[in-house]
Amino acid sequence: MRITRIFVDDPGVSERADLLAAEEPLGIRIGGQAVSLTMRTPGDDIDLAAGFLFSEGIVSSAADIASIRICDGSKCGHDHEADDAMGNIADVTLRPDLPTGPRRNFLTSSACGVCGKASIAELRVPGRFRLEDDLLQVPAGVLARLPGALRRAQRVFERTGGLHAAGLFTGAGKVLAVREDVGRHNAVDKIVGWALRSGLLPLRGCLLLVSGRASFELVQKAVLAGVPVLAAVSAPSSLAAELAEDAGLTLVGFVRGGSMNVYAGARRVIPAR
Amino acid sequence: MRITRIFVDDPGVSERADLLAAEEPLGIRIGGQAVSLTMRTPGDDIDLAAGFLFSEGIVSSAADIASIRICDGSKCGHDHEADDAMGNIADVTLRPDLPTGPRRNFLTSSACGVCGKASIAELRVPGRFRLEDDLLQVPAGVLARLPGALRRAQRVFERTGGLHAAGLFTGAGKVLAVREDVGRHNAVDKIVGWALRSGLLPLRGCLLLVSGRASFELVQKAVLAGVPVLAAVSAPSSLAAELAEDAGLTLVGFVRGGSMNVYAGARRVIPAR
Repeated sequence: MRITRIFVDDPGVSERADLLAAEEPLGIRIGGQAVSLTMRTPGDDIDLAAGFLFSEGIVSSAADIASIRICDGSKCGHDHEADDAMGNIADVTLRPDLPTGPRRNFLTSSACGVCGKASIAELRVPGRFRLEDDLLQVPAGVLARLPGALRRAQRVFERTGGLHAAGLFTGAGKVLAVREDVGRHNAVDKIVGWALRSGLLPLRGCLLLVSGRASFELVQKAVLAGVPVLAAVSAPSSLAAELAEDAGLTLVGFVRGGSMNVYAGARRVIPAR
Repeated sequence: MRITRIFVDDPGVSERADLLAAEEPLGIRIGGQAVSLTMRTPGDDIDLAAGFLFSEGIVSSAADIASIRICDGSKCGHDHEADDAMGNIADVTLRPDLPTGPRRNFLTSSACGVCGKASIAELRVPGRFRLEDDLLQVPAGVLARLPGALRRAQRVFERTGGLHAAGLFTGAGKVLAVREDVGRHNAVDKIVGWALRSGLLPLRGCLLLVSGRASFELVQKAVLAGVPVLAAVSAPSSLAAELAEDAGLTLVGFVRGGSMNVYAGARRVIPAR
């Protein structure tokens, strides 16, 4: 798009072309029923949908998902009134015999659940993997190099400046996957969905790095995916640190300029080079 | 809390106290019915709830709200099983004769609405204020000084590094209100709710600044509140720029170091000092 660039110390104004990070809605439907809408950067949408299903506790393995089809309003069998591709749909079909059990209605129950028995436990999606058993030890130097590796792997970031990113690394700091999105949660869901579909869960011995801050929800996604170390370029929230401690996750923040803060699970970080 | 601070070039490890940005769930209930749960930084919760109601199109004036009570699970009449204050509730009572009209069920309809007639228009909450009529002109130098003014006004930021902020300014750059939150959306909702309850809407002639990026939702909140200029320290998304252009909002991004990019409504920005 064309933008106007202004320098305060220069009365002149320049127009130039600029590339913005794409943001479009993705609706997720299960068996034709709308369950979620997220504003996301298009790309890796099947991974995003799969990661969402996993993070919400709806599926616990790739086998629980019969199919995920992405339709943009013009090529699918839905009753679309317009060929407007602004709204994309991820059309999920679950395994027919999937035991739904006490599956929560995640569009409303987290709101209901918070009254009465309000606690962190209520907000948590029960996980299957025990992080306590992951004996990974990671040198601080490896963690310190992750943000640079993430930036190098980001194709779009340098051009738009507007994308969050999540990177999955081996315990030695080798890049396994990098995903970008206007939403940090989506970037992590794209990683988790990719790992789920690739049969890589739990992510034992791996490191997950997110640009920006670490919220409660990001910690929860990391715990569910069985990754033992979550690192963030910026600060975690109080609830993020509490949940990490509670779940046995190593939570590292402010990974920048050769230093870092460890908020939980410091036993996994080896200080010496 | 106690954290472990590690410097890669220094084999030593120090422990120190650290203050984290608080993140706790706030449930919003209308007439006893749960409608939303948001992870937020406690504080200004009534403004947050009011801003949410306004941004979702549920109320259009302060008079539509009969009362908002905040209860933490120990002091209210709800059937709380535990005295756990982790989950706070904003208990909203609307004006009894409020015409609900075609009020959308915002927990689900945005998901449903995106399929079929998927378009930006579907996602938009119809606004009451015409931004086109706002003839504000703001010198670029005023915009360039907003981030510094916001940072100075942030009490918590310097200590936690983890809080987003939104600031409302006069057209001359004077601070009217500053709110912080782990979520940028919440910070803006707190500003909007405060303005609603103070009888200041529409925010004609004002400037709204947000830390970080400008998403579709932030642009929508600005448009609904009738503020003619939204500035962001970082990048807008594509959909944010599109909506701003469509709604007559001036959208400025990358306001840093004496320069800025204008993505929509450049007519309101005076380049010369």
